[in-house]
Amino acid sequence: MAFQKPTGTQDLLPGTVEKWQLIEEKARDLCRRFNYREIRTPIFEQTSLFERGVGETTDIVEKEMYTFQDKGERWMTLRPEGTAGVVRSYVENKLYGEPDVTKLYYIGPMFRYERPQAGRQRQFHQFGVEAFGATDPAIDAEVVALGFQYCRELGLKDVKVEINSVGNPASREAYREKLLAFLNPMKDSLCKDCQSRMERNPLRVLDCKVDQDKFGGAPSILDSLDEECIAHFAKVQELLTAMEVDYVINHRLVRGLDYYTHTAFEYKAQGIGAIDTIGGGGRYNGLVAEVGGPDQPGIGMALGMERIALILEKQEIGLSGIQPLDVYLVALGEAADKEITTQLFHLRKAGFSAERDYLGRKMKAQMKSADRMQARYTAILGDDELERGEIALKSMETGEQRTVKLAELVNELK
Amino acid sequence: MAFQKPTGTQDLLPGTVEKWQLIEEKARDLCRRFNYREIRTPIFEQTSLFERGVGETTDIVEKEMYTFQDKGERWMTLRPEGTAGVVRSYVENKLYGEPDVTKLYYIGPMFRYERPQAGRQRQFHQFGVEAFGATDPAIDAEVVALGFQYCRELGLKDVKVEINSVGNPASREAYREKLLAFLNPMKDSLCKDCQSRMERNPLRVLDCKVDQDKFGGAPSILDSLDEECIAHFAKVQELLTAMEVDYVINHRLVRGLDYYTHTAFEYKAQGIGAIDTIGGGGRYNGLVAEVGGPDQPGIGMALGMERIALILEKQEIGLSGIQPLDVYLVALGEAADKEITTQLFHLRKAGFSAERDYLGRKMKAQMKSADRMQARYTAILGDDELERGEIALKSMETGEQRTVKLAELVNELK
Repeated sequence: MAFQKPTGTQDLLPGTVEKWQLIEEKARDLCRRFNYREIRTPIFEQTSLFERGVGETTDIVEKEMYTFQDKGERWMTLRPEGTAGVVRSYVENKLYGEPDVTKLYYIGPMFRYERPQAGRQRQFHQFGVEAFGATDPAIDAEVVALGFQYCRELGLKDVKVEINSVGNPASREAYREKLLAFLNPMKDSLCKDCQSRMERNPLRVLDCKVDQDKFGGAPSILDSLDEECIAHFAKVQELLTAMEVDYVINHRLVRGLDYYTHTAFEYKAQGIGAIDTIGGGGRYNGLVAEVGGPDQPGIGMALGMERIALILEKQEIGLSGIQPLDVYLVALGEAADKEITTQLFHLRKAGFSAERDYLGRKMKAQMKSADRMQARYTAILGDDELERGEIALKSMETGEQRTVKLAELVNELK
Repeated sequence: MAFQKPTGTQDLLPGTVEKWQLIEEKARDLCRRFNYREIRTPIFEQTSLFERGVGETTDIVEKEMYTFQDKGERWMTLRPEGTAGVVRSYVENKLYGEPDVTKLYYIGPMFRYERPQAGRQRQFHQFGVEAFGATDPAIDAEVVALGFQYCRELGLKDVKVEINSVGNPASREAYREKLLAFLNPMKDSLCKDCQSRMERNPLRVLDCKVDQDKFGGAPSILDSLDEECIAHFAKVQELLTAMEVDYVINHRLVRGLDYYTHTAFEYKAQGIGAIDTIGGGGRYNGLVAEVGGPDQPGIGMALGMERIALILEKQEIGLSGIQPLDVYLVALGEAADKEITTQLFHLRKAGFSAERDYLGRKMKAQMKSADRMQARYTAILGDDELERGEIALKSMETGEQRTVKLAELVNELK
């Protein structure tokens, strides 16, 4: 019986996985520089954590969640996104008690039961950051800039950030009324989804792909912002410019949920068909309290790793895959075979990558194997050399060969 | 409403997570040196992949599996261990078609619904390797040595490997008969589990914790090995000695499943209460065929990361946690605040870790924050300095302070 991986999941094999390692190392290195520290939360959480509130969650996420009962009959859900678990952990572990702003990052798998397509998997992976405890626009700008800098350092071309401000609850309420006044006359001509969203969450109507062309004259949320919100947004923009972020304002970028405040943003890149979203984020000053914590502000962003990997590929940005081997050891004869094992051990202990044959192949086949592994050196041990306590060391680049003492092999290669 | 992480799962927070990063980096570096390449398989697989065969899987794993139906009504299971998914991937992706031995490693979460206790979680993590395609005892020895070397390089004290040979199917059948002849007279005095195992899988009877003291005179599987098996086992031992592995033979270490052959081993460490198993592995020449692939041999090992982390802690082996910050930037005044953002951006771009205040704190509080982050330098920018295009740079180690040009700050720190 042959088995297959579940639909919508991937095997990352040698040759591809090295690209993912580089993408992740870049994320870790960037977070070190920006002073974000890693947090790892469980792969599944209580379902109720993801069922909070209404609107976006209910609409999009809940229908696609991997939810199951564990053997203790508790409802669990494979995390569909990273923020909820991090906020839960921030609250449960009382990280808000620390004197500095809590700056966290995560990298890991997320799960949504969607129709799989290019760059969209049922098990997908996100790199995200969350910063808790500060309302300063400097942290909004930093979070936006971090994601942008990540794309830039990976070499992604034509990345742009679209930003907006959704203001505070008061200005959003003012906007909601203006928007409904605009939508109501055209209600009957809108799709069913739009009509239903008008009741529950009018701001999300603007996201509709079907009716997009009808919203050209829709009011802008920016016209509903109060002074405090305007000043916050202006400062964010000023600091984004200082950090050389390519951004444009998109006043249509709105978030339906009540806990979203001020900055909202998306990262766009050229590559998958047309321009596509590779990630985004926003300020969520109401979320920590909603998850049962104190009234602490927060802001975060997340990037889709599959999408980034796909765009890197489409843009033909080569990330070096295979790592060349340092030494391939060739044993000729039974006695040499054991000595090779000792040498292999000492080379590896000293930090070199070293390999040998395990298939009883002839010397010629072993040299081919060394070539495939892009070995810098081969070291060949026959019975004669062994008797003299020596080994033949050959540079695969120059073809130069010399004899070195077995006891000196590690030092010779250093 | 406050939420809690699911029972048996952990949040790895800053301060702890850095230890896990080091443990993982060590695994990756060791695998680079031993020429194993990473593979990442999905977090869940079709349930049937884990339900193969009988014996060990049925006994231990299946009762504890996280199994659920997805929205397409397919039975899925969160992986309870790493080998099945890797073998499935090796077969599905036809990796057996490559000319060299396929040497793979994985690091990641696994899931079993068990009673949580120290070092045993429902979501736990394993580092493992699998090598396919070779029967050479050199690869058995290498896999055993890799896990041992990992523990040694992490600094774990008193790690020992117990090894055994379970031979080939013919020698195991011979042993099964000898063992039953030994067990049959005492059958009625054995526990219910033992009696049931005698029917289904007599080799696993020797694992019983209840009846352990009755098995002193049990026959050794080593006495049932044929010549080929004896030679293989002798060679493994010779090579383990060549690689300085501390091993002892434990002839009670048997594996019940039919696909296990030759080398079986466990890693033991002092630390959790008494001596405890932190990992193990074995040769499984029958497994690839059982999963629907060609008749390719294989061998693997896996180590429990929670157990290793726990023993490192018990043995008081300090892994450096927090990474010191390179520079903390202090802005005094509104104009300085914007310039700080620019400087922060350029420092981070140049590879430095750099931080600022986001809480509108006074200078004294900011210097305290820099101390908490173990900053090597603070750079202080007031309106006067800004006007002159300068910044005050202070070494936190020596207390020395000097003035540098703003445009030169990055170069000064290099």
